[in-house]
Amino acid sequence: MQTAVSFQKGDRIAVIGGGLIGTSWAALFMAWGHDVALFEHEEASRNAIPPAVSGLIAQVAELAPGLPASGRLHLATSLEEAVEGAAWVQENVPESVPLKRAIYAGIEAVAPAGITIASSTSSLVWSELSADMTDPLRLITAHPFNPPHLMPLVELFGPDAARIQAAAAFYRSLGRHPVFLRREAVGHIANRLSSALWQEAVNMVAEGIADVAEIDAALVHGPGLRWSVVGAHMAYHLGGGAGGIGHYLAHLGPSQERRWRDLGQPRLDAATCDKLVAGIAAEAGDRDIAALEAERDAGLIAVQRALRGRRP
Amino acid sequence: MQTAVSFQKGDRIAVIGGGLIGTSWAALFMAWGHDVALFEHEEASRNAIPPAVSGLIAQVAELAPGLPASGRLHLATSLEEAVEGAAWVQENVPESVPLKRAIYAGIEAVAPAGITIASSTSSLVWSELSADMTDPLRLITAHPFNPPHLMPLVELFGPDAARIQAAAAFYRSLGRHPVFLRREAVGHIANRLSSALWQEAVNMVAEGIADVAEIDAALVHGPGLRWSVVGAHMAYHLGGGAGGIGHYLAHLGPSQERRWRDLGQPRLDAATCDKLVAGIAAEAGDRDIAALEAERDAGLIAVQRALRGRRP
Repeated sequence: MQTAVSFQKGDRIAVIGGGLIGTSWAALFMAWGHDVALFEHEEASRNAIPPAVSGLIAQVAELAPGLPASGRLHLATSLEEAVEGAAWVQENVPESVPLKRAIYAGIEAVAPAGITIASSTSSLVWSELSADMTDPLRLITAHPFNPPHLMPLVELFGPDAARIQAAAAFYRSLGRHPVFLRREAVGHIANRLSSALWQEAVNMVAEGIADVAEIDAALVHGPGLRWSVVGAHMAYHLGGGAGGIGHYLAHLGPSQERRWRDLGQPRLDAATCDKLVAGIAAEAGDRDIAALEAERDAGLIAVQRALRGRRP
Repeated sequence: MQTAVSFQKGDRIAVIGGGLIGTSWAALFMAWGHDVALFEHEEASRNAIPPAVSGLIAQVAELAPGLPASGRLHLATSLEEAVEGAAWVQENVPESVPLKRAIYAGIEAVAPAGITIASSTSSLVWSELSADMTDPLRLITAHPFNPPHLMPLVELFGPDAARIQAAAAFYRSLGRHPVFLRREAVGHIANRLSSALWQEAVNMVAEGIADVAEIDAALVHGPGLRWSVVGAHMAYHLGGGAGGIGHYLAHLGPSQERRWRDLGQPRLDAATCDKLVAGIAAEAGDRDIAALEAERDAGLIAVQRALRGRRP
């Protein structure tokens, strides 16, 4: 059986679905020298892809100067055309189990035997998605963090260990940082962490503890800054003094459990949603979404250039 | 009444308690040109402070080249000696209400009338701490994020709005980023966010979803990296497409509420603590705590230098 291990630089990659995530993946693959065949079924969306991709490739080049950026983009007019002869499939269609299952059936009908189909799904899990496949082991979940062309994280799950290792090697070859789930979970790792943190961020707004902009500033200048360098578990290890996390758990475990019970479980009711929308308006000021995204992207590039070579 | 508004560069600052936090504050104040009178009641700890402070000042200078770094350190042998004539008091004694109340009584007996007593408390709140004071309004909570000499965040609360504004001006003059609570809360803002995120990080270890090192890597290369640049609320605004957070809440609010209900509520029992300790050992490898701290500090300096001038 041909497996992902045989993937070579210059091989063609099929990108299925040309929304925000598919377009960003296409730019990343092309920046690293791969040709991309992209299938997007909506014609209006399809026409917007080439100019968008050019802008994103320029950002990747800013982040990682010296890349070949020689990949070519082919806009396929059918799923079959995109997938035929592809060495890798990255699927990014909307988050619907029936839709994704239909796409996988279409891919299995024409794609070279055994090549990996990697789903970018954020909210669905492998067992649901693979249920109707002829060869379910060829499916993996490979969830990027938005925007994929600038964020290194890719979260991997699939029951075929060799295929997961091959996927990790593939994403590493694109400057990504793959992480591994031991079992599938809704939201994988990163969105579970984000969701847990945002729950308390919303709670503090609902409870009137602090305004939206102050909570965001506390995160950016406090734990967010620290978590760009060390993880949450490791931070508690370093907060335990010479005894590390063992000492921390022995002495402060009970008070941490009490803190967990003190956290809120807000509802996103109309009153709370109004406070969130008003709070974001105050925080954004006169910056529209395009300006805020440009600030974010410039920041993401600056931080990663500063940390290059420092992180394991 | 003399208030914190009258604080001038070069005025002497009293630092009460010379543990990790007090020593780090002392270094920051001295790096920015202030003399410090530090009272630490344990003689053994006291002797370790001057060499520690020198190392920390060098880190501040690396982060912010060109600072005067001309402050002098005086190791006071009594609370009274530290506080007499001080223009600002930063209190960092252990997290005990009776101990802190006794310290405030001692300070009020000798400190210039009206000067601010800023408590670095992480887990106690203003109403508990100020209860026995002659002039409770002079107390504020001013919680830094560890390590204070490298982390910009200072979380402020107190019922005297003018004093809080003066405190914000003071901490800004030291290159800090103050944020404001509308009402007191255990853990202020940042530790509530950290605690909420860590709860799910522990849950994923307890449930066998992923290993400690993988969870830390997912955070550092995913949401942590993003949160060093944009806050959690703003990230959902940018995840909502052209409609921003209003569109996000209208369309994905219900699925977010379902995700919140899917998050875990782990116990720090012996089995989970063993997994955390073993996971950190695997993540740390042959790096001891000093090496890990040095990596963290170098990273914090690099990221902040990269982001200088970019963030509001």
